[in-house]
This record gives sequence, C-alpha cells and structure tokens, in this order.
Amino acid sequence: MKDFRSDNTLGASPEILDAITRASAGSMTSYGNDEITARVRKRCSEIFGRQVDVFPVLTGTAANSLSIAAMTPLFGAVFCHEDAHIQRDELGAVEFFSGGAKLILIAGAVGKLHPGDLERSIDEIRKSKKTAVPACVSLTNATEAGTVYTDDEIRALCEVARGNGLRVHLDGARFANAFVSGATDIDGVDILSFGASKNGTLAGDVIVVFNRALSEELSLRWHRAGQRLSKMRFLSAQLEAYLTNDLWLRNARHANAMARRLRDVIGEAVEIVRPVDANIVFVRCPPPSGFLFGDWPIFGPDVYRIVMGFNTSEQDVDELAQSLMRSRSIAT
Amino acid sequence: MKDFRSDNTLGASPEILDAITRASAGSMTSYGNDEITARVRKRCSEIFGRQVDVFPVLTGTAANSLSIAAMTPLFGAVFCHEDAHIQRDELGAVEFFSGGAKLILIAGAVGKLHPGDLERSIDEIRKSKKTAVPACVSLTNATEAGTVYTDDEIRALCEVARGNGLRVHLDGARFANAFVSGATDIDGVDILSFGASKNGTLAGDVIVVFNRALSEELSLRWHRAGQRLSKMRFLSAQLEAYLTNDLWLRNARHANAMARRLRDVIGEAVEIVRPVDANIVFVRCPPPSGFLFGDWPIFGPDVYRIVMGFNTSEQDVDELAQSLMRSRSIAT
Amino acid sequence: MKDFRSDNTLGASPEILDAITRASAGSMTSYGNDEITARVRKRCSEIFGRQVDVFPVLTGTAANSLSIAAMTPLFGAVFCHEDAHIQRDELGAVEFFSGGAKLILIAGAVGKLHPGDLERSIDEIRKSKKTAVPACVSLTNATEAGTVYTDDEIRALCEVARGNGLRVHLDGARFANAFVSGATDIDGVDILSFGASKNGTLAGDVIVVFNRALSEELSLRWHRAGQRLSKMRFLSAQLEAYLTNDLWLRNARHANAMARRLRDVIGEAVEIVRPVDANIVFVRCPPPSGFLFGDWPIFGPDVYRIVMGFNTSEQDVDELAQSLMRSRSIAT
Amino acid sequence: MKDFRSDNTLGASPEILDAITRASAGSMTSYGNDEITARVRKRCSEIFGRQVDVFPVLTGTAANSLSIAAMTPLFGAVFCHEDAHIQRDELGAVEFFSGGAKLILIAGAVGKLHPGDLERSIDEIRKSKKTAVPACVSLTNATEAGTVYTDDEIRALCEVARGNGLRVHLDGARFANAFVSGATDIDGVDILSFGASKNGTLAGDVIVVFNRALSEELSLRWHRAGQRLSKMRFLSAQLEAYLTNDLWLRNARHANAMARRLRDVIGEAVEIVRPVDANIVFVRCPPPSGFLFGDWPIFGPDVYRIVMGFNTSEQDVDELAQSLMRSRSIAT
Repeated sequence: MKDFRSDNTLGASPEILDAITRASAGSMTSYGNDEITARVRKRCSEIFGRQVDVFPVLTGTAANSLSIAAMTPLFGAVFCHEDAHIQRDELGAVEFFSGGAKLILIAGAVGKLHPGDLERSIDEIRKSKKTAVPACVSLTNATEAGTVYTDDEIRALCEVARGNGLRVHLDGARFANAFVSGATDIDGVDILSFGASKNGTLAGDVIVVFNRALSEELSLRWHRAGQRLSKMRFLSAQLEAYLTNDLWLRNARHANAMARRLRDVIGEAVEIVRPVDANIVFVRCPPPSGFLFGDWPIFGPDVYRIVMGFNTSEQDVDELAQSLMRSRSIAT
Repeated sequence: MKDFRSDNTLGASPEILDAITRASAGSMTSYGNDEITARVRKRCSEIFGRQVDVFPVLTGTAANSLSIAAMTPLFGAVFCHEDAHIQRDELGAVEFFSGGAKLILIAGAVGKLHPGDLERSIDEIRKSKKTAVPACVSLTNATEAGTVYTDDEIRALCEVARGNGLRVHLDGARFANAFVSGATDIDGVDILSFGASKNGTLAGDVIVVFNRALSEELSLRWHRAGQRLSKMRFLSAQLEAYLTNDLWLRNARHANAMARRLRDVIGEAVEIVRPVDANIVFVRCPPPSGFLFGDWPIFGPDVYRIVMGFNTSEQDVDELAQSLMRSRSIAT
Repeated sequence: MKDFRSDNTLGASPEILDAITRASAGSMTSYGNDEITARVRKRCSEIFGRQVDVFPVLTGTAANSLSIAAMTPLFGAVFCHEDAHIQRDELGAVEFFSGGAKLILIAGAVGKLHPGDLERSIDEIRKSKKTAVPACVSLTNATEAGTVYTDDEIRALCEVARGNGLRVHLDGARFANAFVSGATDIDGVDILSFGASKNGTLAGDVIVVFNRALSEELSLRWHRAGQRLSKMRFLSAQLEAYLTNDLWLRNARHANAMARRLRDVIGEAVEIVRPVDANIVFVRCPPPSGFLFGDWPIFGPDVYRIVMGFNTSEQDVDELAQSLMRSRSIAT
Repeated sequence: MKDFRSDNTLGASPEILDAITRASAGSMTSYGNDEITARVRKRCSEIFGRQVDVFPVLTGTAANSLSIAAMTPLFGAVFCHEDAHIQRDELGAVEFFSGGAKLILIAGAVGKLHPGDLERSIDEIRKSKKTAVPACVSLTNATEAGTVYTDDEIRALCEVARGNGLRVHLDGARFANAFVSGATDIDGVDILSFGASKNGTLAGDVIVVFNRALSEELSLRWHRAGQRLSKMRFLSAQLEAYLTNDLWLRNARHANAMARRLRDVIGEAVEIVRPVDANIVFVRCPPPSGFLFGDWPIFGPDVYRIVMGFNTSEQDVDELAQSLMRSRSIAT
C-alpha cells in the first residue's frame, strides 16, 4: 500500500538519523544546557535575523499549547480559525495548559482568517466584558486546508492583532512548506511553533520565541509540562541537522513539488477542493486500490486528504495520478 | 573531565540507535497505532506476567504526573517521601496535571517510606476531612537516595495503601536498577513509570498500566498533554530494543556493579552517606580535579552524588576511586 | 429612573428578609450540617417528586460551573446554545472548574437548541476523536432569549443526550419563570442550577442533584470552590422561605404577567424581537427618557432587553408602555 | 447545649441584619457597580490609611485562594505555617485557584512562623530550582492557634518576604480579633483576606488589595470564580455596617474579653495549651455536659477548642468556667 495519509506516517531523513548517532558520544550536561542546544538557538537566530530563544519539544500539541499558555491569561480569549489544529485535534490541550482559556472560532474560506472577521470577533468579545479577555491570535501556516498565507496576509492579520493589543502565535507544524512557498515574514509573530517532525525529524519540534519577554515563564512551563528532555542533546541534534545545509527547505520543496505534480497531472479529472499551496491535496474521490488517503469529512462528503512528504517519490505520485484518473473514468 | 553527575548526561546504547534507524523504513500508522508499539505492549505483558497497557512518553516527569493524575481526583492527597522526585524536581507537575492535588510529604530514613508512618499520615488526612481526600501513594524504586526497597518492603507499603482504599504508583525512573537488585514484585502496583532514558535510551520512558480500568482516561490525558508522538514508532522502537535480549537488565547490572566497585574500593576512606543498593553513591567529599559530581546539599553539607551508567567503564571507576582516596589523604 | 435592566438590580422579597432575621437566633452547626439546610433538601425532594441532594451556592456562575464540572471530564465536550450564559457571561468559569473542558456552541432560533442540530454536533465531535469527548448538554430554561422550552422540547433534547450517553445540566437561573409557563418536567435532567436570586432572594441559588451518583464529588468541589458557607443557615433560610407558600411561583407568575402586559399593550407599535414566554421583552427601541434598559447588541442593532421582576408594579409597566409608544410615534 | 465550637456557629449582629433590610429598597446596578460597594471601598481606604481596592466574597476559602492566586504563578511556592487554614481546611483551594502552586509548610511554635525558618525555607526552594518558584508568604493573624503576631513580628516576616522578592498575603479570618489585640500594621502586606463572617456578618468577607497592581487580574478571577454576586449590595451592605461605628472592633473586643475571662477564671485548674491572645482557648479537657467544643487532635490528645463570639454572654462563660473546674476536680 502506498501511504498518503499524512506526513507523520513517514520515517526520518538519513541526515537526522546520522546526527542522533553522532550526538550519542560522550557526556553532556542535561536538560538543555548542552552545546548542541546552544547551537540550535544560534542557528534559529540566524535564520530569523534576530535574537531568539528556543525550547525544543516533542510534539506540535506541546509546542502550540505551551506557546499559547505563555501569552494568554487563564481568562483569555484565543482567536483562531474554526478548523485550527488547536481546536480540532488536541483534545483541549490549549484549554488545559492555559488554565481554561477560551478558543474563539472564526470561519474563513480555504482555511484562512480574514482581517475583517478577526477585527469583528475581537471587538465582540471585548465589548461582552464577560466572555473572555482578548489575549492572542493563533494562525496556522501552511494552513490546515493546505493553503499558504502570503506575507501580506499574515502582516494584515498581525496588524489587527497588534492594533488590539493582542499577541500572535504561529502554528508552523508545516512552516517549512509555507516558507518555501514564499511566506517568510515573521515580523508580527511573538512565538512560532516551528514544526520539524512532519518534514524529516523523528519527533523534534521547537518553540521559537521572538518576544523574549515571554521566555522565562515559558521555560518554567516547559519543564513542568514534562517536555524538557533530560538528554536534550538527542532532540537538539535532530533540529541542528534539520536546519543545516537547508535540509528543512530541501525536504519541504520536494514535498510541495510532489503536491503540485499530482495537481498538474490530474488537472480537472478529479475534483480538487482546496488550492494546493503546500504539500497537501484535498480531493473529492476515495483512494484507489493500493493507496491510503486520510478521511476528511469536515471538508464535505467524499473528501480525502493526500499528503506528500520529504521522501515521496515521483514514481509514487505518478502511479497515484494514473490510478486516480483511471478510477475516475470508471466511475464516469 | 569524567562525568559522574547523572545517568542522564550519558548517550544511548548502540542497540537503541540501531533500532531507531531500522524503524525509519517505510510508512507506519501514526499516534501509537503501529505494530512496534503493539509489540512493546506484548513484551511488557510478558515481562510482568499479566496483560498490561502501555503509553510511551518522553520524560519521567510526564510519566509520573500523568500516571498519578489518572488515579487521583483533583482534591486528592498523594502520599510520598519528602525527597520524592515528584516533590523536589518537577516544578509542580503533579499538582498541574491533577488539577491541584496535594502531595503529603512523609519523612523516612535512607529515602524509604515506613509502613507505620504511611498509615499514620493517611489516617490524619482522612480524619481532617478538609485537607484532601486520600487517593494514592507514590513510591520510588530505586529511591532518590540510591537505595532499593525489597519486595517485602514494597508489599508492606502496598498493603497499607490497599487497606485504606488507595492506589499505588511506582516511580521507576531507575526501575531496572532496582529490579536487578532483587525488587521484582509489582503485584500491588496500579501504574508504573517504567524509566528507560537513564539506562540507555534517548528519551523513551513508558507508562505501564496494571490496573487497566485506568487506561482509557490515561489515554486521553496522554494525548492532550502533548506526549503522544505522531511518529510513535521512533519511541516504541527504542523501548522494544531496550526490552529485547535483556538489554535493560544488562545495562542496569553493569551500572550497579560499577557503584559497588567504587564503594568496595574506597571502603572507609571516604564517607558514604547512604547505602549503595543501585547505581548511585552519595559521598561526603567534593569531586577531585578532573571529575564531575552532582551537588546534593539536601543530604547534608559537602555531600555529592556519583552516578554510574550503562557505559561507565571500570577504568573510569578505578581512576575515580584512586583520586578520591588520594584527595582524602591530602585532606587528612 | 425606572430600572428594567435586569432582575438582579432589584432587592429581595420581604419574606426572604424575615427568614434571614429569624435564622439568626441561636447557634447552629456550620458548613451546611444544620437543620434548615436539611429542610431545604426535603422541600426540594417534595417539589421534584424524588429524593434529591442540594448544594446551596451564592451565584449562578458557581451553580453552573460546579454542576457541569461534576459531570464532565477535563477533556470533555459540553454542548450548549451559542448564546448560553455559560459561554457569554461567566469569563470561562466552566473551562476553569472543569479543568479545561470545551464548550461546543450550537446555533438555534429564539435561544433554543434543536434536537437535530444537537445530534449532528455530538456526532461530529465523537467522530473527530481528537477534539473532545462528548460529556454533557447544558440547556437553559427560561432561555437567554426569554423564551421557554416546552416539556416536549426538553424531553426531545434529553433523549438525544441520553441516546448518546451524555448527561444533562439545566441552567435554571430563571427556572421559576419557565416552570410557571408550563415547563415542569425535569425527568431527563441530572443536575439543575435552581436560580433564586433573580426571583427574590439576596444571593441564594441551589444546585439540585437528581443523579445522586454525582453528589459526593460535587460536595468536595463545592467546598474547595469556596462556595460552602460556614454560616450556611443564612443561605438555606432564604431558600426555605423561597420554596414555602409558593413564594417562588408567585414571584415568577407576577414577573411573567408583567412581561405579557407590556407585550400586549405595545402590540405592534414597537418591534418585539423574541417571543415573550417568561419575564423578558426584547425590543428594537432605545429606552425612553426616565427608563433604564439593558443593551443587547448580540440580538441586532438597537435591540434592548426589558426585564420584569417579582416586584415590578403594573403602574411602572403601563408608564413604560405609554412612553415606548409615544417615543415610537415621535420617531415615525 | 451551649455552643463553643466555633465563631461560625453563631448568628449575625442586629446591625448587620438591619443593614440588609435597608439595602433591599429600590433598584441598584448589579455586580458590584453600586454605591454601597463604592462606600465600602472608601471606608476600607480610611481604615487602612491608603487607597485600596475591595472585592467582597462569600467565604474565607474564596478570599484566601483568590488572593494568593493573584500573586502566585502556577509554578509558584506559597510559604505558610504547617497548620495554616489554607493547608488544612480548604481541600486544596489554593492549589486549584492557582493552577497547581505548591504550599511549602513550615513548623513554628504557637502557630507562628519564625523569620529565620522562613528565610531558610525560601532559600532551600530557590536553590532547588526545580521544586517551585518562591512567590509569596501567607500569614494568618490571629493565627490558627489563637495567638496574635505582634506588629514587630509581622514586620520582621514581611521584611524576609520583601528581601527575597516575595509578596505577602494575610489571612485575616480573625483580623478584627488580632487588630484589637494590637496588631494593626499592614504596611508589608499586599492583600488581606479581611474576615467578617466569624465576627458578625452572615457571609461577607472582603479581599482588601493594598498592592493595587494586582487588582485587575483579581477582578477577573473573582468573576469567573462565581464569587461576584449579582446583587452585590447585599454583601456590601453587611460590610458597610460591619465597618461603621466600630462594630467590627466592638464585636472583636467582646469576644477576646470573653476568652481572657475564661482563661483568668480557670487559671491553672485546666491545662490551656496555647497562649490566649484572641478569642480562642485551647484546653486539654473534654467538654463538660451541656457544652459543645471543637475537637482539635492536631494539638495533641484530648485537646479541644473553645471559641468566643461577638454575642457570647459573660454568664455562659462563667457557667462554662465553673463546669470545667468542677469536671476537672472530679477527674482528679
């Protein structure tokens, strides 16, 4: 079976595996006070062009909920898209880590928030006085719909947030895929959940803090959440390899290219229900025999998700495309 | 510098690294629904001679606090030794994950709880009616003092817990070290934090549930805590290798032997302040030049912790012993 | 100024004040173990025709959030109307007391949930597996829109809840107003927040538990929430007076009658935007000079809330009606 | 039966009951935005000689836990006496409202903390780095042992707190009883739980905030905790009467005088196990027939608590004294 269900059903890049083995030699200070973690921080600072703090974590759920909890009081409102991963897929982790903050859900085409809707929603909550206190906006890029906010779109949303005194969290579970599609501006962002495991590592994501006033509290929440590895070197070594020689960008470019390849081949033969900006293709068509897709009923009946990864081969994509078109013509 | 600060400043066993590389091939269902995780469950069931559920996690803090939260209401009392890791080293993780449960601290020589003291403490809390509701006992084996409860001692404590309707959690961050010292009985235990990262893995511990009525809730807490890896195979593969061909026992036997070796060589030349039952030696003596120890002021002035690991060499131990005795004779 | 903003801007019934003074004599066991509280429990059991447990509390927010927390795990989903008080007016109290449960908001005309929508919403959350675990439904009667669910409507919603294994909470902040409008069936309800302060007491609401398996945990949550008065007699005495000689029903009947009186007089002269089933009239018309209304922008531009109380006089209602019609004809 | 179990088994002062009846007239803005609450704030500012903010609440548990939560991060350490009400009697309310802060218990003779012990405890926790982050000290005056810290003692403890960057909470459940014993200095205190219900009100305590930077967050926590009464006037009216014409001081002076009267009469005939500084007498002697005492096993075998109230009569005290001496001579 060819598996297109998700980028987390894949293995790890060889460069990542090598880095782990190399990191195993010798003794090293535990809990993140080691030299590899220090280098990851330096590398992230270079990439983003400013001094950042980094907190490696094991899962995107941890990255998102710790980041948001560090910028949201327990009576705070977190504004996000109604299909956001933090709403749909984390079993209330944000509510838990924040002590009961409230997600305010906003609809928006192709998985994106629209600045006008965000402004209206913040305004309504602020005026209510008793629903929650507007605290932050959580954006996802690439979005859960496989689309990518442009830099202009992100800037416009950050301006609404800033204008209302709110902070901005960016869920970048697929940040690399958005980045190589041109979304590189993080100027208005306070904290980024910088995903890596969907793009080649074993399990390593990293919280990147641009607004460093939040770092001390985040550091303590990170420890008490059980996310601060004793042998942090093994997580940091993955991240270092990921950010070296553009592995993160190469892997993402490949995955995105495979998604475009599929889209271009199947053309209009199969209905594609969302724009293909990153590494995901949503189709209205069940998987042909020999292939695995992800079910995606929230996008409508018979909708499935096809995800390309860092190691998806052109041949597999082409076979999938052929099978899709064949099954389609049979159906017709 | 020879590093004896902790067993978490060491790298990983070669068998573990190999297993990770092997696990990377092909696609696999995510979030723990893969075949490797299924085999880990089967292997744990064999080792403990009963059907268990397993939840791989990333840190001991996560293992302890999720386990205790699953057996303790938010107004519950958790009885533990005053030096327990859950009290001293986890920044209130148990209080957090449980929704505000209260740790009831009990003193006890050489890091161990005494059944009579436990009984009295449970009794006092029960009678108070307004302090907390007695819910569970958390034991650590090997203890934070480097001692090992015998099977009889563990059984006596479990009897007190059971007789009072309390559940039992066992913090087994160094369970392997206790096991090879003869502490193998887990009959009265509801959930075990089965440590692995101090004994050869990268970061993989596993929650082993004997009282399977607790598993469903634990499963949901595990996900929302951000501890359920998407690429779980990489964690489970480590655990599988750890539990294969007795690697866990071989590593622990070696570490314990190194501790005994040090103890036997230095004899009375240096004051050893706790019995050496596992892989730790507490000495009243600062580290000689060229060696790193862990500071341990809670055991008294000038007390330091020396920890042996799965890959500590006899030669390093002997050099340490010689240096200790030399520095001692200089001091005298 | 004549104040029609809310039923909580009014004072207390003379019977309630007398009861407080009477209750002050002598000494009485504290924390609810007194004879008056025992009689309140007995009286509630008579009214509802079954053995109940009662927990007097000070505010509706406490009643709602403690009740829901007692029937919802921390990863649970609470289904409610999008305008529910628990969503809009309690600053996340349910999220807080439950440890981070998630409110799932459902739209519905005239403030009411529709069984089909509830079924669909439960179904979607259940299938998601990772959003939250369906746990309970919270209904409000009389609703926040001033309408009253009929017994048939409540039964149909309870059936959906039961059929899905969910519990039912009834927010009865204005339960008396619904009751005298004919909504008397509480057969499918697990816990009722039985409001009293909007209908004549100082501050006394009472949690009435029909599903008594929930009482023990609720009792402990009640204490630790700081809602268990030491001099409980003063709260229970209010509740006893409230439930004696049908004071609760007489007060509610009067308030409802005043609302109908206003509606009937102003007829079509002023737009009434919601059906008038209880003691509230929503009008699209600002308050005339000399009167205070509540702003209600969530029901549309220029919408205001007019609330009748247990001591609103016919004369005040008539004056208001005349003023409304006069200002209307000026506007036209 | 003459009831000496607690000051919360008594009724309310007539002045308080009158104030409630007077407050019932007319309509008034709800949720604390009324003129009576404004006057309570003004009155408290006069009493304490500085501008304060006030948050009336229903119980001492609410006052303590909301106050402490407003000055303690969720990973914070709260230093208090091992017999503090927040540790022994509130079912973990501080842990709950703070999101899992840790109480650090300190022993101390006659219910009092000693500055040296406090300093050492803060120091140990700070150095641990992983236990909790020192955040605040909670003192009780009058203490749970019926003793009263002098102004000098309070100042010395506040200096230790300040010198370590910690905030200070004062649990003043019996603040009036301490005040009339000479403890009037609140200069180093950030927030006071100003008790009233043990000294004559129905249920009204009030959080008095001296460090007004904490008020905004406290205000939001107060609402979401279900402690912000809709008809706040009824709570504030009690507090206003309590603080008018020195009712609070008169009531406390009387209660303290009754305790001294008992002490002076029984002299050495009955063992008094704690100094009598306020309105409580701890005796090692069961209640004679016709009297009710509170059990107090934590102060030793056969120890009981005798509490005097604002309306305890001299005659009752004298009868008690005679009975105690009679039963004593029989026992001997």
